[in-house]
Order: sequence, then C-alpha cells, then structure tokens
Amino acid sequence: MVQLWKVACTLLLPCLNSNGEKMKHNTPNRNEYYFLTNPVVLPAAMMIYESAADLPLVCPHGHVDPRLFSEEDYHFSNPVELMVQSDHYVLRILHSQGVAYESLGIPVKGKLVEQDPLKIWQTFANYYYCFAATPTGVWIDDILVNVFGIEERLNGKNASAIYMAIQEQLDDPNFTPRKLYQRFNIAVLSTTDSPSDNLSLHRQIASSGWKGNILPTFRVDAILQIDRPDWRQEIDKLSMASGINIMDFHSYIQALENRRAWFKQMGATATDIAVVNAETLLLSVREMEELFQKGLNGTISFDEANRFVAGMLVELARMSAEDGLVMQMHVGSYRNHDIDLFSNSGPDLGADFPIPIEFTRPLQQLLCRFGNHPNFSLILFTLDESAYARELAPLASYYPAVKLGAPWWFNDSFNGIQRFFDQVIDICGLYNTVGFNDDARNFLTIPARHNQWRRASANWLAGLLVRHVIDEEAAQFMMKALSCGLALKAYKLEDYAPENARIT
Amino acid sequence: MVQLWKVACTLLLPCLNSNGEKMKHNTPNRNEYYFLTNPVVLPAAMMIYESAADLPLVCPHGHVDPRLFSEEDYHFSNPVELMVQSDHYVLRILHSQGVAYESLGIPVKGKLVEQDPLKIWQTFANYYYCFAATPTGVWIDDILVNVFGIEERLNGKNASAIYMAIQEQLDDPNFTPRKLYQRFNIAVLSTTDSPSDNLSLHRQIASSGWKGNILPTFRVDAILQIDRPDWRQEIDKLSMASGINIMDFHSYIQALENRRAWFKQMGATATDIAVVNAETLLLSVREMEELFQKGLNGTISFDEANRFVAGMLVELARMSAEDGLVMQMHVGSYRNHDIDLFSNSGPDLGADFPIPIEFTRPLQQLLCRFGNHPNFSLILFTLDESAYARELAPLASYYPAVKLGAPWWFNDSFNGIQRFFDQVIDICGLYNTVGFNDDARNFLTIPARHNQWRRASANWLAGLLVRHVIDEEAAQFMMKALSCGLALKAYKLEDYAPENARIT
Amino acid sequence: MVQLWKVACTLLLPCLNSNGEKMKHNTPNRNEYYFLTNPVVLPAAMMIYESAADLPLVCPHGHVDPRLFSEEDYHFSNPVELMVQSDHYVLRILHSQGVAYESLGIPVKGKLVEQDPLKIWQTFANYYYCFAATPTGVWIDDILVNVFGIEERLNGKNASAIYMAIQEQLDDPNFTPRKLYQRFNIAVLSTTDSPSDNLSLHRQIASSGWKGNILPTFRVDAILQIDRPDWRQEIDKLSMASGINIMDFHSYIQALENRRAWFKQMGATATDIAVVNAETLLLSVREMEELFQKGLNGTISFDEANRFVAGMLVELARMSAEDGLVMQMHVGSYRNHDIDLFSNSGPDLGADFPIPIEFTRPLQQLLCRFGNHPNFSLILFTLDESAYARELAPLASYYPAVKLGAPWWFNDSFNGIQRFFDQVIDICGLYNTVGFNDDARNFLTIPARHNQWRRASANWLAGLLVRHVIDEEAAQFMMKALSCGLALKAYKLEDYAPENARIT
Repeated sequence: MVQLWKVACTLLLPCLNSNGEKMKHNTPNRNEYYFLTNPVVLPAAMMIYESAADLPLVCPHGHVDPRLFSEEDYHFSNPVELMVQSDHYVLRILHSQGVAYESLGIPVKGKLVEQDPLKIWQTFANYYYCFAATPTGVWIDDILVNVFGIEERLNGKNASAIYMAIQEQLDDPNFTPRKLYQRFNIAVLSTTDSPSDNLSLHRQIASSGWKGNILPTFRVDAILQIDRPDWRQEIDKLSMASGINIMDFHSYIQALENRRAWFKQMGATATDIAVVNAETLLLSVREMEELFQKGLNGTISFDEANRFVAGMLVELARMSAEDGLVMQMHVGSYRNHDIDLFSNSGPDLGADFPIPIEFTRPLQQLLCRFGNHPNFSLILFTLDESAYARELAPLASYYPAVKLGAPWWFNDSFNGIQRFFDQVIDICGLYNTVGFNDDARNFLTIPARHNQWRRASANWLAGLLVRHVIDEEAAQFMMKALSCGLALKAYKLEDYAPENARIT
Repeated sequence: MVQLWKVACTLLLPCLNSNGEKMKHNTPNRNEYYFLTNPVVLPAAMMIYESAADLPLVCPHGHVDPRLFSEEDYHFSNPVELMVQSDHYVLRILHSQGVAYESLGIPVKGKLVEQDPLKIWQTFANYYYCFAATPTGVWIDDILVNVFGIEERLNGKNASAIYMAIQEQLDDPNFTPRKLYQRFNIAVLSTTDSPSDNLSLHRQIASSGWKGNILPTFRVDAILQIDRPDWRQEIDKLSMASGINIMDFHSYIQALENRRAWFKQMGATATDIAVVNAETLLLSVREMEELFQKGLNGTISFDEANRFVAGMLVELARMSAEDGLVMQMHVGSYRNHDIDLFSNSGPDLGADFPIPIEFTRPLQQLLCRFGNHPNFSLILFTLDESAYARELAPLASYYPAVKLGAPWWFNDSFNGIQRFFDQVIDICGLYNTVGFNDDARNFLTIPARHNQWRRASANWLAGLLVRHVIDEEAAQFMMKALSCGLALKAYKLEDYAPENARIT
Repeated sequence: MVQLWKVACTLLLPCLNSNGEKMKHNTPNRNEYYFLTNPVVLPAAMMIYESAADLPLVCPHGHVDPRLFSEEDYHFSNPVELMVQSDHYVLRILHSQGVAYESLGIPVKGKLVEQDPLKIWQTFANYYYCFAATPTGVWIDDILVNVFGIEERLNGKNASAIYMAIQEQLDDPNFTPRKLYQRFNIAVLSTTDSPSDNLSLHRQIASSGWKGNILPTFRVDAILQIDRPDWRQEIDKLSMASGINIMDFHSYIQALENRRAWFKQMGATATDIAVVNAETLLLSVREMEELFQKGLNGTISFDEANRFVAGMLVELARMSAEDGLVMQMHVGSYRNHDIDLFSNSGPDLGADFPIPIEFTRPLQQLLCRFGNHPNFSLILFTLDESAYARELAPLASYYPAVKLGAPWWFNDSFNGIQRFFDQVIDICGLYNTVGFNDDARNFLTIPARHNQWRRASANWLAGLLVRHVIDEEAAQFMMKALSCGLALKAYKLEDYAPENARIT
C-alpha cells in the first residue's frame, strides 16, 4: 500500500521526460518538479514549459550589487555570506525559530557576533527543515542541485560536507558572476540605485568590453522621505551629484530631472519607488514649495510628509510621461516594525510587514492626469493580494498606462503565482501584466526563481489548454510572453534580447 | 513528446461524450469545454451537467433593453453595435491597450468619431488575442460557435469574413430577439428600469400576445443620489410619473410607493440599488425630512447625502417587507473614476472600479430591524471577494432575509465562480444563495454566461460527489437548484417555469 | 454514460483501501472520503494519512464542559440537546431558513418554547439537506457513521428512526464521556474557564483516579470588558475567588496573577482572549489606573474601554512572559449583532459575525516589547482570511513569540484548511504554526473535526510529495507534526502524549 502512489506515477506518467530517460523520483532535479500531477494536465504543462526552454532570462528589477560585474574576477567569499546573511527571507525564518541575529554573524549593537561561517552554516542547516514547502527552501534546493550539482537536501548532518563542496566551487577561478550570467542565459539585468549614485560601477561595466547588459534603475525612496532625520543628508548628496544647489522645490525637481537624464543615458529604462500606501494628490506648486521648505527646516509633520509624497508621486508620473522612464510602484510594506532590531542592526533584516492597501481611490488623481498618457507606463506591485481582483486588475483593464507587476516578496511562491493568474487574468487579460521579475538579492537564486515562475506559468496555461479555453498556438505564444516577452516590452528592453524572445 | 497531452486525453477520457461520438479536440464546441480534466472528476461533472440540460434559463437580473421584445421584428443593426459598443467589458480591454474610444465609434466630445463598423470590427479583431482566458473572450467564442455557427476564433486575418458571416445572420428575418428568446430556452427575463419609467414597452409586450416573460425591475439609484446636479430633474420626473407633487420627504416616499405598486402590477418581483458602500442607518423622520429639504435647496453636503442614502436603505427595506418586492443591493463600485471620460463620453464605458467593502457593521441597523422579517428578502452582491467568507456568508447563514447573489461583474468568471463556491457554501450552505443571474447587457451573451455558470456548478458538485461529501441524488438536485431552482424561488418567479425546474 | 465516473473510480483507484477490501462507494464511511481524487495524489494522500492513524487526538482549545468528565457516569440526555441545541453552527443555519429559535427549544422571552425533543429533531431533519457540503454537515454525517454506526444520511423520512437509534445508544451505560474519551484516543483536552472559576470540577477529575487529562484554560474576556454593565459583578467574583479586594489597578493585576497561578497549579498551560480588534498599547500605569477607576465608577467611554483592553493585552503578554502560560488571541468577531436575539435569548446563538482585521500595526507595541521574549508565546487566530498572507504569516515568519492558530470558526472547513496551508506555509513555514485545535462545543464532533484536519493535511502534503517539493520522510514527519506534534509543543503539553507523537 505504501508505495502505491509511486506505482500510480509510474503507470500514469510514463516517459514524460523529454530526453527519454526514466523519471528519477527521489532526486530533486526532476523535469516534472512542481507541475500539477493531474495526468491530463502534466504532459501539456511539460510541452508548454519545454517550448520556452531556450528563451533567455530577463531581469528588469532586482537588488543584485553591480560590483559583481564591474570586477572581472569577482568571487563570492563563502556560503554563509552568499546564501544566509545577504537574504532576509532566510534570516527572518531562522529568527522566528529563536535564532539570534548575532549568532548568524549579523552585527547587533552591544552583542558579541559569531565570526565562524562554518558554525553559522551549521546553525542554518540544523533549522533547514523549517524551510520545507517555502519558496526559499525550493530555491535553495534548486541552487544546490542546479548551480552546485549537490543532490542531497541540506540537513544538520551533511552541513559541513555541503559547506566544503560549495566553498570549493566558489573558489574556482571560473565561478565568477560574469560567467554565471552567461551560464544562466541572462539577457539583461537591472540593478536598483540611488539617484545620487554616480553609476561608476555601471560605467566600468559598460567600458570593460564584457557583453553582459547591467542597467541602473532610478530608485527614489530616500529622496522623498522628507521627515526622516537623514533626508537633509540625502538632499545634499543629490545636490552634489547633480551639481544643482537644492534650495527650493524648483531646484529639487531640477536636480531629480538632471539625475533621471543621467540614468537614462547610462541605460536605465525604469524608475522605482516603495511607498507605504498608494495615495496620490495633484497639489499646487505653491503647496509643494511650502511643504518642501518645512522639510528643509525640519518642521514637517508626519501628515504633511505623507502629503508631500502623495504630491511627488504625481510629479514623478509627470517626469515619466516626459522622459519615458517606466514608473514602478511597490506598495504596502510597513518597514522596521521591530524598533529594537532597527536601532541595533539596521533595516532589511526581515522585520518589514504588509498592511491592507487600497488602490482605486488613492490613485485617482494620478490616473486622471496621466493614466491615458501614451508615453506613460505605471507598473504596480502589491503585498495585499485582496487588491488583485478588487482594484488592481480592474484598473489595469481600463487605463492604458497601468500594468501589473508579478507577485512580490511574500507572494512570490508557486501558490502565490497561481493565485495571481487566477485572480488577475480573468479581469485584465495577460497583456496588461508585465511577466516576471525576480527581485533577487542573492544572484544565485535568479535561475531558480525564473524556473518557478515558468513552471507555474506552464501549469496555468496547460489548465487552459486541456480545458479548451485556449489553443496550442496561443498557449505557446503566451508562454513566450510570460517567460520574457512581456517583461521586454513593458520595461522597454527589447533591444537586449533576440527576436524570438519578443512578442512585438 | 509534444503530443503526449493529447494521447493522455485520448487514453484517459475515452467516450465521455454523451452521444457516443469521439471528442473533437480542437474545435471550441466541445462537451468537455471548461471542465476540470481530472479523469475521475470529469465524467462525474459531465453526468451532472447533462442532468440539467433541459432546464430553462432564468434571468432575474440584467440590462437587456425591453425594446428588443416590444417590437416583433426587432433586428440588431451590425456586429459592432451588438458585440463591441454595447459592452463595457469589451470596451475597457480595448481601451487598456491604447485604443481610443472615438476609434471604436464611441462619441467623445471634440473628437472625430469612427463611423465605419467594419473598420471598428477590424480593430476589435486585431486586439482579440488580449481577451484570451478572460470570460469576455470565452463568451464571444461561445457566441460565435453556438449562436452563429462560426468555428474559427476571431483574429485580425479572418475579421472581415466573420463580420460578413455575422451580418448575414443578423439580417435574416428570423434572427429576432423574440425568436432567440425561445431558441435560448429562456423562461423569464427581468430588465432594469427607472422608477419614473411608465413601462410602456413592457405594456406593449404584455398586450402583444407573445408568450415571453419580460418583467420590469425597480432600480432606484437616480432617485436617491440627492447631491447630484440632475437629482432635482429625477424628482420632477418621479412627480410626473406618480402624479404626486413631491415637496417633502413624506410625498417623496408616497411617490416611491406609488411607483413600486405600479411596477408590481406590471409583473415586477424585485427592486435593485447600487451603492458605493453598505452603510445603513435607522434615522428619524425629522432628520430625513431635514436632509431631503437640503437636497431640494441644493445645499446638502457629501456626508449628509451619504447619510440620506443610509437612511433610505432602511426605508426601502421597510417598503420591501410591506410589498414583498425582493431587495437587491449591488455594493462597492466607485463609478466614473476617469473624470475626463465621464465628462466627454458619459458613464458605463469601463471606468468604474471596486473599493474595499464592509458588510457586518454597516448592515446592522437594517438587519436588526428587518433581517428576521418573514416577508423581507435582501440579495447582496459584492465586488470585494474578501467579504465572501468574512462577512457575507456568515450574515446569510443567520438572518432569514439575507441571501447571496452570484459573483458579480469582474468576478463573473469560471475562477470567480469557483472561489464563490469554495468560500461561501461551507459557511452558509447552498440554500442561502440565489443561484445565477447573468447581468447581461448584450442579449446574445446570455446562453454563454449560463453555460459557464452551469459548467462551473457541475464541476464543483462533481468534486463533492467523487469525494463522497454528497451523493448522486443530492448532486442532481443541487444542480437543478443552481441552474434555475434557487433563482426562481428567491426572485418569486416560480410561476414562470415548469414544475421540474423548481425546488419547492 | 451516467455511471462513467464510477467506472473511472473503479479503474483508477483500485484496491486503495489499506486492509485490502474493495472500496464501498456509496457508504459514507469510506477511506478515501474527502481526498482529492487525482489518481496520482490520492494514493500518496492515503499513505500519508495512514502513517498518522495511531497518533492520539490532542485538544488544546475547546468549549467542552468539564462536567462531562467530573461525573463518572455522565450521560447525554437526548439527541437534540447533544447535536442541535448546544451547537450554534447548527442553530444559525436552521434560523437562516426561517426556523424560529423557540421551535428549536431555545428560550426566547415572551415566546412559548417547544419542549418535545422528537419534534425538534424532526424539524432539524427536515432542513438537514441545507447542511450539504458544509463542515457541520460533514461532521454530523461522520458522527452518525463513526460514533453511532448509522449509515444512512439524516432526512425528514428517517428522522424518528435515527432519533431512536441514537437515544438507545445514549442510554447505554457504557456511553459515557470518559469512555468515549478513551475510544476517541484523546491524549489531553483543555476546557475554557472563567478566571473566577474555582475549578472544582477539574479538582474532582484530578482526584478521581481516572486517567484522562482535562486541563483548564484561563479565559479572561469578561474581566476585561470594563464598559459592560456586568463588569463590576465580574470584578466582585474575581475578588472573591482570589481573596484580594480589588479596589485599584494594582490589586486588579494582583488578583489576575493570583488566579493565573492557581490555574497553572491545576494544570493550565494556556490563556485565551477574544477581542474585536488586535489593537495593543503600551500605556503608563497611571493611565491604566485612571481608566480602571472610570470603570469602577461606571463613567468609562467606549473609546476609553477599547484603550483599556489595548493596554491590558500588553499587560497579559507581560504576565505570560513571566509565568509561561501560552497566550491565545481570537480576533475579529463582532458579537451579538442581532440585538433582539441577544436581549431575548442571550449570546452564542449564531449572531456573531466577522469584521475586517489588521494585525501588523495594531500588534506593534506588544511585539516590540515581548515578540522576542524567549518565554513568551502568542498564538493568533483570525476570522479575516485576507490577513493570512498579508499580515499573520509574515509576522509569524519573523517574531519568535508569534505562532499561527488553525483556521477558526467559519473557516474550519476542508476548503478553509486548504486555503490556510496555501496562503500561510509559503511565508512562515510549517513550524511557525501550531497544528490543530478542534474548538469543539459538542464533544462528539471531536473525532470528526480531527479527521477532517488530518485528511486535509494528508492531501496537502501529498500534493507536495508528488510534485517533489518534499520527500517521503519529510511528508510523514510533517504529518505527525500536523496531527499532534505541533500542538503538543506549542501548548506545552508534551508530557501528556507518548513519545512517538512528539516532534521534539
């Protein structure tokens, strides 16, 4: 009885492997990994998935450090820095199990910090069972198999052996980000950069003769947080970078436009902003000037600061309509919830949590002004899935400028992607979405994340195909669109990909 | 490998077709269209679906123009007016792709409007791929096959050929709404009408000797929007229609009651109202009078207008408890979001979007007063699905007066219907819902919409049957209830249907 | 054609029954009951389910009366009291169909109340079809088959025969709760008790020599509702029970701590509180004292009372961090919505409904103070599922103290459990959840509820297994964790279960 499901697999899923070998059921490197096992849907899903096998990875949004590519021989130091410390998805689950950040080598004010990466790795491995069935676990399994060729799942017993096996490969002279970029078949990768960044690393990459496409993205958050203690400093940096002495709202806008022009010249095709809510307001220049002066004087209130951001979102939309840089908005993360963690160790360590978000009413003023503008494009991301079918897909189904970004952060999982398809496409169709972006911090997770997306996409399309909602030709075209075509088009990156990857 | 899913279909789904012919896999007119392909569930779903094959369509709520039936030889003018211009589901997706409304023949102030229907049809066909996997696309596919007998999916290349083929049939003397009504096997169809409408078209239909049942519905929105500039005009029309000179709250109520009586006499069994939120308030007559006078003087504020509507909802419930007309509430659409579109082209063109909605607290005053009244029935519709399991199903599971309407507007899709069943029935059971209403504007979509609903219903019931949650007898009875029995009962329309379609 | 789904079942699901007998398709006591019928997933689900067959039921939260166990020969009086009147899940559905509470034997002020249990049972049976596909229906079906050995589904025709068959068994000298406790294989069962309860029944049980484990739980609601008319009375009872004369905030806290110590001594491992929202505030002792005095004077406002509760939640967390009693919070039920029902018949009769709930911002003050405390554990329950992926799972994925309770009340269904797994585990992993609690009022529903949970768990794990996301060893360990291991650990009950039921 115990083995019956395997018998059923064997009887019902014969020879599904594309290259003719028998399925290996207990190794994680399986072709049918993650597909629904419905015996009618599975072969359709595999056929659709295979049809996109040669298409490149397009990475229009993420948090990979450009330094990985500016230095030809950049090497990752060790498995812990690469896979644990740099990834707040990993850190927060370990923390939830009572593992102190200092024991993971994360600096905590007044605490002795663990220095031995092998010890930290052992801790990680001891708790690795807690990642079962999470996307982080799926990605790490995938990296071990497909990047490092390690077939065993990590656990407390094999921890140090796996550490050594990874370290050996990290030390290999050929294990450089540039070579991995080619091996992963990446067509283009956008980083996330401060407006005050002089983009020297991007310049180095561009002038190095290397063929990879690493583009900057104009991420404006710090410049807008007018009530933060360090805002004044950010303005000074912006003055410096732009060569414009910022003393009023007018010069502030000038400096931003100056930097956008520079980013565009360096290849940027998009901007990004993360906001707690989606409120937008069409304010007078006089009011914006008043708020700005209060910011300079350090007398702006919390509510006034929110009003300033709401006014700036319309202003940023205006700039995008003029310079053609795509506007991305990531909405709904309440940052630095654990105040002690923030003051002792800083941001981005896993203590940011979503809140409920509205879009319809808050975006009205921006969309009435620019939603129909032919040169404007607004890509929306949410952490509150209840807005998918209620507000986001309806808005995208009408306004030409609005497009929906892929499931973000906590929602970037196989289930999250299925919910996105089920709740969004009925309402706005596939062509008001922008395909996938991996949002990766750990460069090595990129193929795993795209793989998860493509398998979920193939799965969804197969369900439509076998139910006769779409035909085979449409299924394959939609698979190409999801794999890279939509992202290339929406982010204006079509020049970076071969013609067969495009949908226009 | 590529064809394996077809092999699997062939092996696993043999002879499922009820009349013994082989399945035709690449034609859209398939019996297994839309069913889950799980080889255990599929035959159960088909059995259940077939059990309802002869049951008539019951259409208790929609937006079909009664003129289609008052004129015996009414003819649709052309494919564009019928399938594109009259359907804001279609218009909004085209608009989202940057297609200007004037190029679709929609009047826009100050713009040259395209007049050639063939050109407009070509534009529609060019963008038809954007409707893939949307319910609108599914319905249009269904209409082409099942109403017009056109087996090809519409695209840019076959656009004009399909246009001609449709036009030819529209011009056929037998292609009249009255004959289609019989062909579609409709038992009864309710329209949506203004309280000031004299229902002359309904009178014409009733006195024509034609056997169809076209009933009016009392839709009260315009009469309640006390802060709108055209409200005064609506009140004048209501005075005229009722013969009651409306000068205070008392005469206003009298006029409404007068018109309800007239609607009831003309066969109406239900009223309808669309509101932005579900707030209800038990206000004193004195306060209602004060608000009403402010409305007449044009001095009522936005908040006071909302308070008036909240008070009127309780008043309308009181009237329903007295005259027995079922009260429908459609909650949560924020109308005319794109202000320019509204001022240049008017309402109902696709720029209405949902907002988050509460029900538990806002409905308390109405439900404490009338929720247990034996003669009162309140059918609730939401655009915010997060309220299904959180508030709507719990309320319907307790108050005898409360029933849940089918998934509405953006949620009226195969996935939306599945979510409705999964989130609602666990909590309130099937018999606190009211089955299906098609909400159709385009008369030809009616069979396609009912077909989608019935297939989704059969699918859901099959899942319960094969998991032994219900037995075959219950499955077939529940299928009858979903197909027409619940709607007949909830809307008091049982006299219009054969006995075998009823559940009481 | 009609029987094809049965043929498919027979062909595709051969001999899945663990003991080799053929499946009986039309009896409700089936092994494959409730499993997804996908022929690949089903055998895996059954294998996983079977692996937990011998594990005991762990019941860390519920509403069973301890009197059932304090009297050795306790007997249930009749089927109606046991299965209808004591269960507001049943009552509310009957009420929704227009059945008056007095006709069900529920006291209603000023109404003649039906006294004949057989008549009430007949009414229940007449409406039993309305429970089809609801969890209540599933549980009652399960009880009839598995507790009483009655294979027929209840209906109007067999009502009195089934009544007699049940009554006969209730009257059997061996049909006592203590014997059922053993037969159900319960390891430990916690009740819900007032802080002023002297726990005499629990003392009787403890001193009786009977081997069952019936533990009290400290449920503090009534003591916190400072603006309720009967609060003063609750304080008096608390004074009496604690022997501390409560005259200010300090003595109030002392009395609570005194009672917690007593509960702990009597075996309690947890506290519980139900709140309308999750607001927590770190208030000064001075402010709490002021609010408390206003409460004593009867001059506290609604907003001040909410502020007091928000402050007390932090205070209760502080106590839990000190005494180690696990803190449960049930959030989001708006109680006694139907005011007439409440004043005529009292609470807990089905007129409590959920409202939208936030967690991220409201819990911040409590979590910043105690979320990282090694001795504190906070188990959160929601009625608003939109908070699962948006706020609850993210919070649990970071704070060591936060764990997520199983789907509660309206969401405790097969579909609700699937949604819980799909939306929660991706984000926080399995080990930040606490497995199952049955929340039962009707003692006989306990095995049915655990069975539903285990089948849903096996189903979910099977989906992961056949998609190779987890391996067989992990699947079986996770099944053990879900069946009892997580609950034993989270509620500190591991001493009450055999070693093979634990996960630590």
